[in-house]
Amino acid sequence: MIQQNGQERAMDENTSYAPVVFSDILSAAERIAGKAHQTQIATSQSIDTASGATVFIKPENFQRTGAFKFRGAYNAMSRLSPAEQAAGVLTFSSGNHAQAIALSGRLLGIRTTIIMPDDAPLVKKQATEAYGAEIISYDKHVVSREELATRIAQERQLTLIPPYDHPHVVAGQGTVGLELMQGVSNLDFLFVPCGGGGLLSGCAIAAKALQPACHVVGVEPATADDATRSFYSGTLQTVTNPDTIADGARTPYLGKITFPLVRTHVDSMITVEDSEIVDAMKLLWNRTKMIIEPTGAMSLAGVLSGKMDVKGCRVGVVLSGGNVDLISALSLFSMHHKA
Amino acid sequence: MIQQNGQERAMDENTSYAPVVFSDILSAAERIAGKAHQTQIATSQSIDTASGATVFIKPENFQRTGAFKFRGAYNAMSRLSPAEQAAGVLTFSSGNHAQAIALSGRLLGIRTTIIMPDDAPLVKKQATEAYGAEIISYDKHVVSREELATRIAQERQLTLIPPYDHPHVVAGQGTVGLELMQGVSNLDFLFVPCGGGGLLSGCAIAAKALQPACHVVGVEPATADDATRSFYSGTLQTVTNPDTIADGARTPYLGKITFPLVRTHVDSMITVEDSEIVDAMKLLWNRTKMIIEPTGAMSLAGVLSGKMDVKGCRVGVVLSGGNVDLISALSLFSMHHKA
Repeated sequence: MIQQNGQERAMDENTSYAPVVFSDILSAAERIAGKAHQTQIATSQSIDTASGATVFIKPENFQRTGAFKFRGAYNAMSRLSPAEQAAGVLTFSSGNHAQAIALSGRLLGIRTTIIMPDDAPLVKKQATEAYGAEIISYDKHVVSREELATRIAQERQLTLIPPYDHPHVVAGQGTVGLELMQGVSNLDFLFVPCGGGGLLSGCAIAAKALQPACHVVGVEPATADDATRSFYSGTLQTVTNPDTIADGARTPYLGKITFPLVRTHVDSMITVEDSEIVDAMKLLWNRTKMIIEPTGAMSLAGVLSGKMDVKGCRVGVVLSGGNVDLISALSLFSMHHKA
Repeated sequence: MIQQNGQERAMDENTSYAPVVFSDILSAAERIAGKAHQTQIATSQSIDTASGATVFIKPENFQRTGAFKFRGAYNAMSRLSPAEQAAGVLTFSSGNHAQAIALSGRLLGIRTTIIMPDDAPLVKKQATEAYGAEIISYDKHVVSREELATRIAQERQLTLIPPYDHPHVVAGQGTVGLELMQGVSNLDFLFVPCGGGGLLSGCAIAAKALQPACHVVGVEPATADDATRSFYSGTLQTVTNPDTIADGARTPYLGKITFPLVRTHVDSMITVEDSEIVDAMKLLWNRTKMIIEPTGAMSLAGVLSGKMDVKGCRVGVVLSGGNVDLISALSLFSMHHKA
């Protein structure tokens, strides 16, 4: 552990970002207390039987806005200065981070502006607007969202809070791991979905602080394996518009902050096929009666993939969210349906 | 309350069955403790907004076997004499009661035999067999299940535990209401799905004992309104093979035990259309991320129907189960989908 902390500091010194450490997660937990739900750890005999392990589920589909993203967004926005809060917050996201920023803004009395591609699903736009955010649409084939966000933030004097590459966002997401580690002792493994690495790195920091022997595994789709390749090569790798049903893991690369954190605190990265994700979703829907989105089910798919030897072990599994269009879910289940 | 208790005793004296009283539910709670889950009471801002009330959800979809039925089955089977337990238990059911009896048998070391129509879904047969029960199939167009059950019970010296019309089953189901009343104070309303009336009467007994001012409402499908008609006419009414998606409420009539209990302890019966059930299911799936079967969603459909004035009230809602074929359920949503 001492060596790991040393490594962490060395890497952080090479960046212009403040390191994220365990006390940041404890501090985030205090800030989000009473605002975010402490999702109840669940168990399932069926999942234990399917995996051969004793599995402890952290169901962030029951989090406010239906995903863990609320934790990081609220933590980051609550830390802005009064002047920054008065000016407002900007982000870019067509997914769970958009709703998380919008709801946090409503709770904190901060105006929020969300940059969303003009082909984002209408239902997501409406849900975000319902929380009181202003939506700015753009043509993603013409403009890069990062450039557009930087320009609008400057013009309007807004603070940009990106979806994952931000220390307070990472610290907020880490409270998922914190609550799991505080709720269940002696975990042998922790499986976490990986998109941009905010949830994974936050959970890994908490896990290594509280249960250093717990082996932390990040899971991403086989067709969007940039983080896995980055992790094992030590050089940031990218993917472009990967074809996977796990829409939350289509992020092109780990962040400047999350990449070194993942390298330092995560033990293994593995990938799963879309068919394995659908099988994990079906198991969860059928047996635990919880609605989990494809990205959220990647962690259980990783447990069931057989890539790590979890038999007889105590395994924590973070299910990151449940925001899936029901009609799309029908086609997923129908396609993979064995008659 | 004194008058109600008097009524209850008078009605029970007209039957050959022991009355079910509140102490039976307390006793059932002790017997199922550590075996059944104490399902966590849930709240949802979306459902509060949709209903105009403060809604407290009792999600029995998270109960073992995916429905409240486990409570009654386990309570009844745990009360059998050693000789009866050694001989074994018989029931008839193609639904949630079958799995409840099968799992209770496995936990208590009692052999179980389930009579199921030969056209029951294969998945239900398999799930019941997986818990270790023996299945006896029959042609429902040729034999009545009650007659067949009575004959087999005599031949094999098995104890018959029917799906709802049994005092220990009613007392077990009443623990749902007990836990809700113990967990939430000052409820103005309690909405409960009604099939054969076991869950409804058990919950009503608990509600009236702990919160007498709470108005207890039973909800059934408009096309299967036998209990509503029985309740208001005072004479047992029946339906035959009603056409409704709420398969758990296709029961032809209230029982000899449940009918007087419903008459005594329930305040109102209302009906809902299938389209209202689908809307309630969609709201639950989309916003609370819980999988609820059509029968289980009837109670929320009743809240949202506007038939009772719940605005500004504190409302308990029992969601009875989550055992639904995913492809069928998602197709339901597609059918009712507004493009």
